[in-house]
Amino acid sequence: MRNILFNISYDGSAYHGWQVQNNAISVQEVFQQAMLQVVGCVPDVKACSRTDTGVHARQFCISAKIERNIPCERLTPAMNHFLPPDVAVLSCREVPMDFHARYSCRGKEYVYQIWNAPVRNPFLYGYALHYWYPMDLERLNRAAAHYLGTHDFTSFCTIDARDAGNMVRTVTKAEVSREGDMVRFTVAANGFLYHMVRIMAGTLLRVAQGKFEPEQIPQILEQRNRHIAGPTAPPGGLYLNRVFYDEEVMG
Amino acid sequence: MRNILFNISYDGSAYHGWQVQNNAISVQEVFQQAMLQVVGCVPDVKACSRTDTGVHARQFCISAKIERNIPCERLTPAMNHFLPPDVAVLSCREVPMDFHARYSCRGKEYVYQIWNAPVRNPFLYGYALHYWYPMDLERLNRAAAHYLGTHDFTSFCTIDARDAGNMVRTVTKAEVSREGDMVRFTVAANGFLYHMVRIMAGTLLRVAQGKFEPEQIPQILEQRNRHIAGPTAPPGGLYLNRVFYDEEVMG
Repeated sequence: MRNILFNISYDGSAYHGWQVQNNAISVQEVFQQAMLQVVGCVPDVKACSRTDTGVHARQFCISAKIERNIPCERLTPAMNHFLPPDVAVLSCREVPMDFHARYSCRGKEYVYQIWNAPVRNPFLYGYALHYWYPMDLERLNRAAAHYLGTHDFTSFCTIDARDAGNMVRTVTKAEVSREGDMVRFTVAANGFLYHMVRIMAGTLLRVAQGKFEPEQIPQILEQRNRHIAGPTAPPGGLYLNRVFYDEEVMG
Repeated sequence: MRNILFNISYDGSAYHGWQVQNNAISVQEVFQQAMLQVVGCVPDVKACSRTDTGVHARQFCISAKIERNIPCERLTPAMNHFLPPDVAVLSCREVPMDFHARYSCRGKEYVYQIWNAPVRNPFLYGYALHYWYPMDLERLNRAAAHYLGTHDFTSFCTIDARDAGNMVRTVTKAEVSREGDMVRFTVAANGFLYHMVRIMAGTLLRVAQGKFEPEQIPQILEQRNRHIAGPTAPPGGLYLNRVFYDEEVMG
């Protein structure tokens, strides 16, 4: 038996998130179908996280235990042959048997994309939120900086039974950058609550609109009340960008 | 009566090209439907060209004569309100009554995108051809340079009654460039035959594969035989990039 870590990427537009669901296609389903073709059975797969419908992944990690002795350099093209074109295995490697894509994960980085121009970009529907008013990046970065550190993020979490328990997370990166008309909010943390990045992005948009001051973010955190923060930004702008594990695993 | 020139852009993935067809949705159809909402009637529209199913446009020009006295700066957002999200009016302006988006056109520039990396990019399905072998850009540019100038492009045209007649076109730009893993073939000409850019791109891929030498391009042109050139590259990599008119029209 071997434990394989798959680095994949996918365009989430056509999928109802990662996790298998009844009556809706998921990335997990097409991934397991491809595994059936390649290794002859549908192994139990462990994923670094769940993504919602329409959310994308530039990197997404899956671990699976398989019997077959196919070398990793052949596993990647074999999986890609059977996966649909909007999902790709970027690489895979053998990891220790006790590695678990979710429990071994040290943190993740997300990017939320905003197309900031007067006219929408027809190529970005479902890939970036269109926001047409000018955005003051200095102001947005002052707001984003308040996300940094260890906080109770209850105000930035859609009420969901899965998260009942520890609402404290440590944010290690929170930056807003611009490249032409594309504005990107990049946030890294040791873990994320349900809808956390999308509510952080929605709150930054409220700051852009002048409805919140950057200095109000600490108060929003302190209140521990979802209704105080901004709206949940739509899923299409969100990308799981990087997944962090201990160096000895990633090689 | 006013003659309006619309600069639009669209993601062609969901459309059966520009031109109205029975039983298939076209960009022209959604454009005329939006005009009906904005100006109260469906005017006859003249387009700079037809694009095929799945071909994209970063710039595409349409002229239409309308009665309504809506200022151009209000026409753009009004049209965008009624157009689907994968089509956008970038700008519009009033032009002389004898202007015709097709007959007044001085030339066009197309880009053909090739994703040149071992693993496909799941975000580029339908937006770039995936070619995984290394590409020698110096060699490709030597081949592309032979497209420059005035030639009979019969070998680079799918047999089509529409083009019967003059097969001579003047190519003013033909370059292959790389940006990371994306390779772009950019070609400008005073006009293009049916499938011309896609056959030029398919022929360059044959050069990349070593099946043609760059120096064979002039012979392929001379033969005036479609069967001698390379295959027609798939539509998803093709973008109408720029449309040229006399300066007094474009302002």
